[in-house]
Amino acid sequence: MLMVAPRSYLDHNATAPLLNDAREAMTAALNCTGNPSSVHSEGRAARRIVEQARREIAKLCGAQSDGVVFTSGATEAATTLLCSKYRAGRGAVRMSHLYVSAADHPCLLSGGRFDPESVSVFSVDGDGVIDTDALRALLENHDKNDGLPLVATHLANNETGVIQPVEEIGRIAKACGAVFVVDAVQAVGRIPVDITKIGADFLIVSSHKIGGPKGVGAFVANSDLLLPAPLIVGGAQEKGCRAGTENLIGIAGFGPAAAVVGCGLDNRRHIRDMRDRIERRITEIAPDATVFSRSVARLDNTIFFAVAGLDAETAQIAFDLSGVAVSAGSACSSGKVGPSHVLQAMGHGDEAGGLRVSLGADTQPEDADHFLSAFEQLVERHARNSRAA
Amino acid sequence: MLMVAPRSYLDHNATAPLLNDAREAMTAALNCTGNPSSVHSEGRAARRIVEQARREIAKLCGAQSDGVVFTSGATEAATTLLCSKYRAGRGAVRMSHLYVSAADHPCLLSGGRFDPESVSVFSVDGDGVIDTDALRALLENHDKNDGLPLVATHLANNETGVIQPVEEIGRIAKACGAVFVVDAVQAVGRIPVDITKIGADFLIVSSHKIGGPKGVGAFVANSDLLLPAPLIVGGAQEKGCRAGTENLIGIAGFGPAAAVVGCGLDNRRHIRDMRDRIERRITEIAPDATVFSRSVARLDNTIFFAVAGLDAETAQIAFDLSGVAVSAGSACSSGKVGPSHVLQAMGHGDEAGGLRVSLGADTQPEDADHFLSAFEQLVERHARNSRAA
Repeated sequence: MLMVAPRSYLDHNATAPLLNDAREAMTAALNCTGNPSSVHSEGRAARRIVEQARREIAKLCGAQSDGVVFTSGATEAATTLLCSKYRAGRGAVRMSHLYVSAADHPCLLSGGRFDPESVSVFSVDGDGVIDTDALRALLENHDKNDGLPLVATHLANNETGVIQPVEEIGRIAKACGAVFVVDAVQAVGRIPVDITKIGADFLIVSSHKIGGPKGVGAFVANSDLLLPAPLIVGGAQEKGCRAGTENLIGIAGFGPAAAVVGCGLDNRRHIRDMRDRIERRITEIAPDATVFSRSVARLDNTIFFAVAGLDAETAQIAFDLSGVAVSAGSACSSGKVGPSHVLQAMGHGDEAGGLRVSLGADTQPEDADHFLSAFEQLVERHARNSRAA
Repeated sequence: MLMVAPRSYLDHNATAPLLNDAREAMTAALNCTGNPSSVHSEGRAARRIVEQARREIAKLCGAQSDGVVFTSGATEAATTLLCSKYRAGRGAVRMSHLYVSAADHPCLLSGGRFDPESVSVFSVDGDGVIDTDALRALLENHDKNDGLPLVATHLANNETGVIQPVEEIGRIAKACGAVFVVDAVQAVGRIPVDITKIGADFLIVSSHKIGGPKGVGAFVANSDLLLPAPLIVGGAQEKGCRAGTENLIGIAGFGPAAAVVGCGLDNRRHIRDMRDRIERRITEIAPDATVFSRSVARLDNTIFFAVAGLDAETAQIAFDLSGVAVSAGSACSSGKVGPSHVLQAMGHGDEAGGLRVSLGADTQPEDADHFLSAFEQLVERHARNSRAA
């Protein structure tokens, strides 16, 4: 008899397992033949799926459904929004400079459609929290004769889980006449997100971080008065904001995932308790372990830590062999081995390799035990090898 | 007892019903949790699905699998390729001007990332066939001091089904040192397509036109030496050619769809016979009907026709009420009512409204009869109304 060892998937910040509601909606949508742009019955049935999902995503963000523009994911949404050409009503508005934080996701840090010389980076402190004084100083030097400032940053960090002071950043941005884009990818479904309360002009969201499928996301506008020049051009889909036939089956799953995580926001205590238990045990097992950003506001599902001398990539492989999926840095930069830009932004040198454990609503106490047992073995082996060396 | 009238879906050029192999692969992929960029076991399982599909798409195009770059669809692929900034190996290559045909899909005609003043349009004849002399004349006037010419056009037309002389166009393009992009969206799976035989540098393909899901496509490069500047930027996915987490479930369906239609290329006689039968009956029922492009090489699944005085959009709605899904123009431009740009390019005035009937391998003789019966009723009613008026 072949025994298949159970696996513990603790990498929800890279991508979350598909929720049952998303799976059921997608399975049903496999039978929906039409193109949402077709006016016949099959087309209109497809259109209804898209519009239902649009309402569900809007609700999760405190937005109007006509502010939701579907994209192939958060990265496309970011490249669309990070652009100098906007229109406000019938007029053109130019964004002359982009301001992003040093701990942003690569899809913001890359600058989107801006030239590198038109991008400035504001710093974060040792805990990974955005230095709002640094942003304010940058914006005070912005030359408005060339165009408006565009400020883009994240609400919750994908590596540390740090929750940024976006409401304060929004006030600073507005005081300087800036347009404000918030990458809410890791935040929606984990903490309440309200586009108006944040003071954001746009949010960026992703389906696969909240239990929907990969390959679909959206940007959410707080007003239909201000919109970026389309990135993908051709047909008139998404009210002219984004050409190309919609990812119907993906969108069919995104909507229910948004509805489910929206309902679950009040019931995440067990995740925080599990996170706290894991962190306590990590520091008991390895007293020299550092849990990053532990003293600041964080997502309740994310643990980012390092053990002196323990290489994160090697440790990740050892965890994988023990049946536990965790991450060394973020998935989007996996493959390219190197220090985390988030840790570097926090002032850590090349030596620090962070391991990320990210939990989900489906994570069970057994998964936590599985991880801790594998970690204990790893630390013991590391100690033996260090003594032998 | 509620009787649901059977529907006949004859709009395969807008989007094709999902093939069983695609459905099964997608259903299986719903259980695949990992992010293809993650290095753990779950991530590697997702990666295998992507790479298997990549091989299947390459095979359908006569290309190497490492030439396939997945996108969110043909429109994104076109916007990526229609760009002035390319790299050849480690060097930069500039495309200074884009040449597209008047009968191209809006995703080419829009010019992608080129400014409108850097786009020239070459004509088609009254049958919708590209005027290669017009292209040659344009390219002879191209000023190479500014950069190379980029020629982009379609292999098979989405409205008329006309198969363009792409091999000749490829020779003309190469003789002028142009880079050649071929929109093969409506051609792959319906006629043999070989990127090298065509002489194309790039092909554009779409999943949902061949029985895969909507929201996934690819561009296929004939060499990894020449590549466009990425459109979507951020992470290092798709070898740095296209950032963003892959549409795993979509790609999982795209691959098997490509494999199935590739195997079916020799077995399309029944589609052509059905097409011919429908066209004969159309002209018997309405002797003043025009079947466009009937005398030139066409896809065997596409009928594009008009009846004098019969408004295409009204007729489409009547067909829909009779249980038959056909199209008035292409789906991507549905919603905006107006004359087909393809018919206009063929020299037809605003009065001509084309109806498109597009068949698939799943189309049954009963579907053809269903369409013809509805058409007969429509023509009779139209004649009565004309007499009464």
